[in-house]
Amino acid sequence: MKKILVSLVFAAVLPLSAQQKPVYLDESKPIEERVEDALPRLTLKEKIALVHAQSKFSSAGVPRLGIPEFWMTDGPHGVRPEVLWDEWDQAGWTNDSCVAFPALTCLAATWNPEMSLLYGQSIGEEARYRNKTVLLGPGVNIYRTPLNGRNFEYMGEDPYLSAHMVVPYIQGVQQNGVAACVKHFALNNHEVNRHTTNVIVDDRALYEIYLPAFKAAVQEGKAWAIMGSYNLYKGQHCCHNQYLLNDILKGEWGFDGVVISDWGGAHDTDQAITNGLDMEFGSWTNGLSNGASNAYDNYYLAMPYLQRIQEGKVGTKELDDKVRRILRLAFRTTMNTSRPWGAILSPEHYEAARRIGEEGIVLLQNEGGLLPINLDKAKKIAVIGENAIKMMTVGGGSSSLKVQREISPLDGIRQRVGNQVEVVYARGYVGDASGEYNGVVTGQNLKDDRTPDELIAEAVKVAADADYVIFIGGLNKSANQDCEDTDRAGLGLPYGQDDVIQALAKVNRNLIVVNISGNAVAMPWVKEVPAIVQDWYLGSEAGSALAAVLVGDVNPSGKLPFTFPVKLEDNAAYALGEYTGVRSDTVINIKYNESIFVGYRWADKQKKSKPLFAFGHGLSYTTFEYGKPVADAKTMSPDGKLTVKVTVKNTGSREGQEVVQLYIADKKSSLPRPLKELKGFKKIKLTPGESKEVSFVIDKEALSFFDDTKHAWIAEPGKFEAIIAASAADVKGVVPFELK
Amino acid sequence: MKKILVSLVFAAVLPLSAQQKPVYLDESKPIEERVEDALPRLTLKEKIALVHAQSKFSSAGVPRLGIPEFWMTDGPHGVRPEVLWDEWDQAGWTNDSCVAFPALTCLAATWNPEMSLLYGQSIGEEARYRNKTVLLGPGVNIYRTPLNGRNFEYMGEDPYLSAHMVVPYIQGVQQNGVAACVKHFALNNHEVNRHTTNVIVDDRALYEIYLPAFKAAVQEGKAWAIMGSYNLYKGQHCCHNQYLLNDILKGEWGFDGVVISDWGGAHDTDQAITNGLDMEFGSWTNGLSNGASNAYDNYYLAMPYLQRIQEGKVGTKELDDKVRRILRLAFRTTMNTSRPWGAILSPEHYEAARRIGEEGIVLLQNEGGLLPINLDKAKKIAVIGENAIKMMTVGGGSSSLKVQREISPLDGIRQRVGNQVEVVYARGYVGDASGEYNGVVTGQNLKDDRTPDELIAEAVKVAADADYVIFIGGLNKSANQDCEDTDRAGLGLPYGQDDVIQALAKVNRNLIVVNISGNAVAMPWVKEVPAIVQDWYLGSEAGSALAAVLVGDVNPSGKLPFTFPVKLEDNAAYALGEYTGVRSDTVINIKYNESIFVGYRWADKQKKSKPLFAFGHGLSYTTFEYGKPVADAKTMSPDGKLTVKVTVKNTGSREGQEVVQLYIADKKSSLPRPLKELKGFKKIKLTPGESKEVSFVIDKEALSFFDDTKHAWIAEPGKFEAIIAASAADVKGVVPFELK
Repeated sequence: MKKILVSLVFAAVLPLSAQQKPVYLDESKPIEERVEDALPRLTLKEKIALVHAQSKFSSAGVPRLGIPEFWMTDGPHGVRPEVLWDEWDQAGWTNDSCVAFPALTCLAATWNPEMSLLYGQSIGEEARYRNKTVLLGPGVNIYRTPLNGRNFEYMGEDPYLSAHMVVPYIQGVQQNGVAACVKHFALNNHEVNRHTTNVIVDDRALYEIYLPAFKAAVQEGKAWAIMGSYNLYKGQHCCHNQYLLNDILKGEWGFDGVVISDWGGAHDTDQAITNGLDMEFGSWTNGLSNGASNAYDNYYLAMPYLQRIQEGKVGTKELDDKVRRILRLAFRTTMNTSRPWGAILSPEHYEAARRIGEEGIVLLQNEGGLLPINLDKAKKIAVIGENAIKMMTVGGGSSSLKVQREISPLDGIRQRVGNQVEVVYARGYVGDASGEYNGVVTGQNLKDDRTPDELIAEAVKVAADADYVIFIGGLNKSANQDCEDTDRAGLGLPYGQDDVIQALAKVNRNLIVVNISGNAVAMPWVKEVPAIVQDWYLGSEAGSALAAVLVGDVNPSGKLPFTFPVKLEDNAAYALGEYTGVRSDTVINIKYNESIFVGYRWADKQKKSKPLFAFGHGLSYTTFEYGKPVADAKTMSPDGKLTVKVTVKNTGSREGQEVVQLYIADKKSSLPRPLKELKGFKKIKLTPGESKEVSFVIDKEALSFFDDTKHAWIAEPGKFEAIIAASAADVKGVVPFELK
Repeated sequence: MKKILVSLVFAAVLPLSAQQKPVYLDESKPIEERVEDALPRLTLKEKIALVHAQSKFSSAGVPRLGIPEFWMTDGPHGVRPEVLWDEWDQAGWTNDSCVAFPALTCLAATWNPEMSLLYGQSIGEEARYRNKTVLLGPGVNIYRTPLNGRNFEYMGEDPYLSAHMVVPYIQGVQQNGVAACVKHFALNNHEVNRHTTNVIVDDRALYEIYLPAFKAAVQEGKAWAIMGSYNLYKGQHCCHNQYLLNDILKGEWGFDGVVISDWGGAHDTDQAITNGLDMEFGSWTNGLSNGASNAYDNYYLAMPYLQRIQEGKVGTKELDDKVRRILRLAFRTTMNTSRPWGAILSPEHYEAARRIGEEGIVLLQNEGGLLPINLDKAKKIAVIGENAIKMMTVGGGSSSLKVQREISPLDGIRQRVGNQVEVVYARGYVGDASGEYNGVVTGQNLKDDRTPDELIAEAVKVAADADYVIFIGGLNKSANQDCEDTDRAGLGLPYGQDDVIQALAKVNRNLIVVNISGNAVAMPWVKEVPAIVQDWYLGSEAGSALAAVLVGDVNPSGKLPFTFPVKLEDNAAYALGEYTGVRSDTVINIKYNESIFVGYRWADKQKKSKPLFAFGHGLSYTTFEYGKPVADAKTMSPDGKLTVKVTVKNTGSREGQEVVQLYIADKKSSLPRPLKELKGFKKIKLTPGESKEVSFVIDKEALSFFDDTKHAWIAEPGKFEAIIAASAADVKGVVPFELK
């Protein structure tokens, strides 16, 4: 009898590979059908295992049912090296070098969605080849203050620009069957006290400024994952926040993907259960308790969740919702057999990194046409500054990378000019010379014990008789520069760079200053320096992209994605904010007093304080002439559209690209509105003498503001202006019209 | 001009995900077409990178082209835990526990190809879920001497049995898109001096005894990979051996898969290039030279190979052949999108492990029908012996595992009998108590400082008044027991177990001895012990499978896959061999003087020395009666077939399985032939009173021997016998016939 029983059991439990394919494994079935087929097969413990990490960067699958594990990787500029199972230390693998792509500030500065698609496709391929399920990026937190140490990972100050640049990135990544995880949702606009800051912001600013890029990521980019931010909003941490996650993200926007906590962003089991968190990572539960066999069992969504269910304190409705989302993610990624194989370290990826870098570099100032460098006439070029030799792909926090190669600006210039021109170098100043990040030495020995005076003297000597002097400085990826978990101490350049620049300006009038940063910096020497280039953290091809722009192989076409104020006091968050920069272990309220007046919206409002360089600003080696913009009608019905056209002509002598910008001004409204807001942009390429007509279609959405009393987007009838501009400070034409 | 050039280059180098699918990525195309499409895309360095390891267990793919890496894992009994990138230490992951399946000796003892298929499917699923490309197993080296420390990983002494059991295992594994890697090819029949032993064997023994299982693995199992052995043959290491790899494997057999070196089995670049090795792993090149950036650059098939090609010393013909094989493997495994997802730790896998274990356990002796244990009458069962509590899935060499669970024999018995019967335990003897393997503590504390006399006294006391005494001993996975890289010192049981058994036999006549081993052991007490069970290393379900047989839930049906000699001198390799067991760092010749007379072939030849237990022996709790076998003809033409039938009846009172064996005897031949050779077997299940007719078809192949002077298989006309038997020593009937 016993024997027969055994035989029967055996017949029923063939290995999966010998069974008929169940619905959840059948890709010909719709995903939702597969989700509903899989869900009831899972035990309670298997479900609990899915909703939290099993190691630093992985989470369990369902081993019994063949549902693979998830492997996360930090982005957004390249795929992070492998770390040990439960330590942050690198695992010492040799197959985990990457191509570093430009920082997202650079991508935003291209104002070119094609570059964003290329970026997403390329980094997505790197993630896919490395078998990553989720790329933790891109980041679209709004650039609210130039002190935020993490601005370099984001896409600038404008919600429209961020929204339009983030979508193709996501699509490109997800074409590879790798989920993009948009971050950090939401209101994480500075780093100091990021775990204890409770943001107080009015709904208007929330909806108009801080959410649009996330909404576009979800609704247009169809992002499969989103990461909660560290800070609090309305007193709840954003990783389990009823208002942001349940009401807005999953409610209003219909997000069907997975909400992932930032590493250590979850703080409370009950909130994590009910307030929209789907997967918990990186919690700091090193101590073992309650019979846990490893730290992960103590995660808020691990044993504590299981116990609450087993004790009947909570039901399984929320758990099933989380698991459905996770299964959906599996079917979209790991279990999608038609996804491609990816690739790493390919010439195509280096080419993409270089192209994006070249298009993002912004020519801020070019008095007397000093740039491009004339290699036919130059005999000697002096390169000055630490950032000419400093590796910038390591450091800065979680976006730190292990690159296969990184071409420094000095090497890039040397490689480009070859033997044609002598290139001499002097350090000029000494910044961070540790060459270390999280215990990893980058391999650079940048130690230098000389005094600032000695360094400046050497730089001046080297620069004095050069045909061109290129000062390459700015910020770096060290703490209190452009670096996660820290903010900057001020707007000025660190390490006495202003002194070096001013000394150089005195001895050589052919001075070019290249500022490498992810943030605006003060430039007290702006009138003493003829040419200024805003460079960014450009990744593997940093030096070659910069050199291409400096010598004119590439005609610069980047436009600032954020305002450069003259001084910190010109920034609204600083002028009105409660941000102190002092560390606090207890929750502190930070009120966004400026409301919607962020970036150029504030600059426009403060008419007296003209920015150093305006949002949208960027010069070219050619010149463009804008015709008079015209609209196809003088009025617009609420459900109608209005088309505005403008002709732009290349009036210079070489091919170039221009970003034509459309701003909308609401001339009268019941609530205060910015002087103008970006509602369209197009990047066009023109050969010398060529003209192109650019057209923008304006609809109600472009005219609307968020009325927080009605909790709705409102377009009020009345007078509007369509403003065609080359930057927020360079208006080329205005077309008035009326909304009926 | 420069700018235009850049644009053109860019247009040509879109990321893979934006390109049209090339042939090598197009699964609708035949594999050979894809191989030929991919090959010319690879650079020389990319090709070189493919043919050697990049870490302990992985090899590079082609990162630029999206061809994934390979990840190897030790088998053959379960998927090994993850180790560090370049260290043997475990990586500390928590997702790498496995189900341990029974040792391959047990699988062979089932004499059931269905069990082999189940085994392959199950372990293949575990490997697939763990993202392994190649499972390093199964092993089919012939059991030549009971001293070989690695016999437990193989399938016994008979080429026909091994050949028929290995094929379904391979098919099952490869159904999962995971390559089986048959090992160790060839002539690796003992462990001591495995790197320095040069085997001298005649072609007849090579082809008749040592190669058939490999040939079946390749030609019938269609194995995608094979592993070269450590030893030498004809003066060349087998990992780069012209005769074995090029002439036989790839030449005569047409193998189109990948030859993988055993870890550290390659010794010479030139031989590795020309003599058939395709992928080099585990070489001991820790010192860096020639500008290598890591130890792997110094592999024989790494920089030294590249340099030879670059210097024009060798061409690329051999390299292209290796790369073609590797690409073929990629398309069959990692890049096969229709392969299933696998699974680990599933109830189905535990069930498979238990089933295979139950079918492989061999009831060697059962005087007076002592077994099965009558639970209705027993009040107290005494379990004695270290192996009742010893974890056997750790140790033994590369097959060591990290199991999710392992049920010990004592726990298995206790769980089975529950509260029905009292189970008492005494250690009896102390064997290896370190609980360590390769620095990994198994978690067992088996320390015991008592003297043998004290232990025996306790055991005798515990056993004296028990209704049944079950002694569970044998060998273990420590050095000089059943363990890689070591051989046994003798045939006897270690740790004084014979004394314990004899002491127990004196105080309780209801003594059952369970021998856990992968090798034959001497049993000087065989006449004093009524019931003897040959157990094996059964893996995760060790205790439950054994308990099921002991109490009769399962009727034993295993048959010995190798001969148990009475004494070591009865083994041909020992009696005639030159094997010394003394370590040698220089090459030593070991001549296989016994030629084809291995195992029962030798026992049959030495008519005076009857084995302790014969090849094919195994009892049941029921009895079987064989009818008179009949043939459908008295003569057979060279191209014809002869069918022999025999009826077998279950004459006992319970259902059981019997393995009906067919041996062929060549009554007269020009070369010496064994008395009989296994040429067929069928496992049948019979209910009480039921009869079944079993038929065997005999063809020329079954009558042939390998004539080394003609290098051909020859069936000489003349008289033959078809022998139906229940073991090599239990002939049930003989049918003479003649080959015309």
